[in-house]
Amino acid sequence: MGARGRFCDRLSERIDAIGAPLCVGLDPVLDRLPEGVRRVNNDAHGAFVAFCTGVIDAMADIACCVKVQSACFERYGSSGWDAMEQVVAHARTRGLLVIHDAKRGDIGISMAHYARASRVLGADALTVSPYLGEAGILPCLGEGLGVFCLVRTSNPEGDAIQTARLEGGTMVCDLVADALHTVGLSHRGTSGLSDAGAVIGATKEGEGMRLRDRLPDAPVLIPGIGAQGGSWQTVRGLVRRGATSPGTMGVLVSASRSILYPDGSAGGDRWQDRIRASARATFDTIRRELDL
Amino acid sequence: MGARGRFCDRLSERIDAIGAPLCVGLDPVLDRLPEGVRRVNNDAHGAFVAFCTGVIDAMADIACCVKVQSACFERYGSSGWDAMEQVVAHARTRGLLVIHDAKRGDIGISMAHYARASRVLGADALTVSPYLGEAGILPCLGEGLGVFCLVRTSNPEGDAIQTARLEGGTMVCDLVADALHTVGLSHRGTSGLSDAGAVIGATKEGEGMRLRDRLPDAPVLIPGIGAQGGSWQTVRGLVRRGATSPGTMGVLVSASRSILYPDGSAGGDRWQDRIRASARATFDTIRRELDL
Repeated sequence: MGARGRFCDRLSERIDAIGAPLCVGLDPVLDRLPEGVRRVNNDAHGAFVAFCTGVIDAMADIACCVKVQSACFERYGSSGWDAMEQVVAHARTRGLLVIHDAKRGDIGISMAHYARASRVLGADALTVSPYLGEAGILPCLGEGLGVFCLVRTSNPEGDAIQTARLEGGTMVCDLVADALHTVGLSHRGTSGLSDAGAVIGATKEGEGMRLRDRLPDAPVLIPGIGAQGGSWQTVRGLVRRGATSPGTMGVLVSASRSILYPDGSAGGDRWQDRIRASARATFDTIRRELDL
Repeated sequence: MGARGRFCDRLSERIDAIGAPLCVGLDPVLDRLPEGVRRVNNDAHGAFVAFCTGVIDAMADIACCVKVQSACFERYGSSGWDAMEQVVAHARTRGLLVIHDAKRGDIGISMAHYARASRVLGADALTVSPYLGEAGILPCLGEGLGVFCLVRTSNPEGDAIQTARLEGGTMVCDLVADALHTVGLSHRGTSGLSDAGAVIGATKEGEGMRLRDRLPDAPVLIPGIGAQGGSWQTVRGLVRRGATSPGTMGVLVSASRSILYPDGSAGGDRWQDRIRASARATFDTIRRELDL
């Protein structure tokens, strides 16, 4: 943990301070960036740093976290990773928590290296894949990181494995949720939340309450609202029973493309204003839909 | 595919040329490197490049591939990624195929970015995780990469999900294998193999033949021989029925720590000789155990 305390508690405090559990996804794609940003920068590295730091500045007071999509940066190799390092450092100076959305999953010392990589990057939490079991989660918790483990993803192709029925009638995603809950029991903070969080897509209508019952303490990162057309009913189903504040509800709504590229691209010279307006609209929607 | 042809065919040809399906894993860990390598290099970057290129030179004529463990490099951020780029470039100049062991898994454009990242790195194939379904596989095949999808991993913690029983009695790993086989049907090469390969640990005694029956065309990357104590019977069970040469057997035995750190570390001044001897011993064992 260290002096900073548990991730789950820092997240909870940050949400209470901001007033709504909004996470903005940073998914920079070169040909969607504002023309001005591309013009004054020679390459993806410069354009990504300029754009992402600009996004951060535009919404640092209405977002709790940024979720950095590692793939967007890795696509440019070591140069892209360097840009990601700069973006994360800037987010931290603006007081934002940082989720390294890298969906890692390995075993033993390799998973420990991934956890260390996310921490050296400056992230507070990491997304992970469950197929290797708790071997892919414990090294992250041991490194003092929060974890968001894929339980139920927003894409339709995930159904084939995630909703496969097990003997006894539960689904594979339920098994993953139960295992995650067990891991989280010994990593709970003063907020009542645990550092073993879950990713559950808002597109999965009707599954929110069932999965919340299996994961009573988990912070849940919820993609799929916005561009993917997810449902607020699912988000509401994921709110922890008995929550006493926005920060103890255990939900974190993530929006990326609908904020960064409100009309398919990031727009012209006034792009920061437009992105702020999109983020603000999402913030207001969250407050309204969650009755905050 | 491009002018180079399919990954599965290049792999098959390379195995036939070398005479045994040996893949050497490059898992550099700073405090295990030879003292001389650490002394003449100021940092992990220099030491990793010196060590890994030295390993490649020591066994370029007895290994078909190198498997680059991305986590070991990412642990050092952009500098580590730069070292990985140099190591992969060197492996290619020595004629080795390169597997980017990154166990990626995402959806949509993010997975396409990961596939592009592996290709820009110079890799021929990528390891991927199956929890997001075929969304995590198709973009890699579309990028001209081979895929090795985690089906049955060598670690015990993976059993909880991978061997969970589905209604009807099959296991989750069987479901993954079946889905992978379906994807591979439209990505088969002249070798009879497909570009949709699998990772199946040699530690899973008795499961090799069952999984091979479900994956008749898949190249199978097999970790777990060596340091993890896997079984040659499992490897033999994974050999494709009717194979006409080493390259059409569909198995690729991966060894990392047992070759790189034969006594727990890479040894003293004669480390390249020792690593070559370890690789050679593994090569000979493969030939003996597979009756080549």
